[in-house]
Amino acid sequence: MGRSADYSKQKGAVAATLDIIGEPWTLLIIRDAFLGTARFEQWQERLGLARNVLAARLKHLVAHGIFEPVLYCERPKRYEYLLTDKGRELQPIIVHMLDWGQRNVYGDQPSEISLVHSCGHAFKPVTVCDACDKPMVGSDVTVVHNDNAKTLSEIYGERA
Amino acid sequence: MGRSADYSKQKGAVAATLDIIGEPWTLLIIRDAFLGTARFEQWQERLGLARNVLAARLKHLVAHGIFEPVLYCERPKRYEYLLTDKGRELQPIIVHMLDWGQRNVYGDQPSEISLVHSCGHAFKPVTVCDACDKPMVGSDVTVVHNDNAKTLSEIYGERA
Repeated sequence: MGRSADYSKQKGAVAATLDIIGEPWTLLIIRDAFLGTARFEQWQERLGLARNVLAARLKHLVAHGIFEPVLYCERPKRYEYLLTDKGRELQPIIVHMLDWGQRNVYGDQPSEISLVHSCGHAFKPVTVCDACDKPMVGSDVTVVHNDNAKTLSEIYGERA
Repeated sequence: MGRSADYSKQKGAVAATLDIIGEPWTLLIIRDAFLGTARFEQWQERLGLARNVLAARLKHLVAHGIFEPVLYCERPKRYEYLLTDKGRELQPIIVHMLDWGQRNVYGDQPSEISLVHSCGHAFKPVTVCDACDKPMVGSDVTVVHNDNAKTLSEIYGERA
C-alpha cells in the first residue's frame, strides 16, 4: 500500500502530524488502540479493512514511534502493538474528533462511545491556554509565521 | 476524485469526523483557512496539489457545511470559501495537531507557524474537563460503549 498523499514538500507541524497519522484508517486504528485493541486480528475484525492496508498502517506507525511491537507468542511469532508515550500524546486529537462528530453528526443520538470523567460528569473537552488557563477563543490566538521553516523531507533528510 | 476510504459502515463520532475531514489534504486546506486562505488559487499555490483534487475537497467540505461559498466576482463567477461555525469548531483539532507535530517532529526547530495567546505567552493547548476544569489524564476518563450506535450510512440515510 503506497502513501495516499505526499506531504514531503510541505512545511509545518500540522503537515508533519498528518504525514504520520493522516492516512485513511490510521486515526481509527489509533482510536481503537485507546479502547484497548492491540492485535492485528482485533483491528481487522473491528474495522473490516483489507489486511494489506492494516499491515502497512501498523508498520508506518511503528516506524514513526507511535506503536511499540511487543512479542506475545513465540511460535508462531505474534506481536501486540502498544501505544508509546508519543502515541498517547495523540489522545487530545482523538478526543476532540469524538466531541466534534458527536455534536455535529450524531447530535442527540448515541455514538459508539461516550466518555465520563473521574469528576462524575460526561467528559466534554475544552482547550485552554497552558499559561493562563483561559479557554481558547480563535480571536485570542495570534499566528506568527516563521519563514525559515524546513520542509518535511528536509527534516527527515537530516536525520537519515 | 473518489473517496480514499469508505467509512460508511463504521460507527461512531470519530469515524463521523474523519468521514468529513479525513481525506488526504483536507486538514491542510482547513489549516490554511484558519490562516486566512479563502480562494481556490491561494490554496493551489500554497499546497501545490492537483486542481481536481482541491476542487473535490472544497465541494465535499461545502456539502458538509464546513465552508460556505460566497460570491466575490460576478463575471466570471468566483467564490470564496469561508469557514462556517461548524468549520471553526475544528480549531481544537488543528491546534492539537500543530502542538503534537511541533513537539514530536520539529522539536526545537521552528515550524511554519507558532501561536501566541492574548495573555502574552506562547500558546500551548491543554485539554481540560468542561465540568471540573482539570486537565485530561487518560486514566481519568472512562469509556462507555453504546451498543445501539448507528453506522454512518444509517445516520445519513435517515436524512436523505
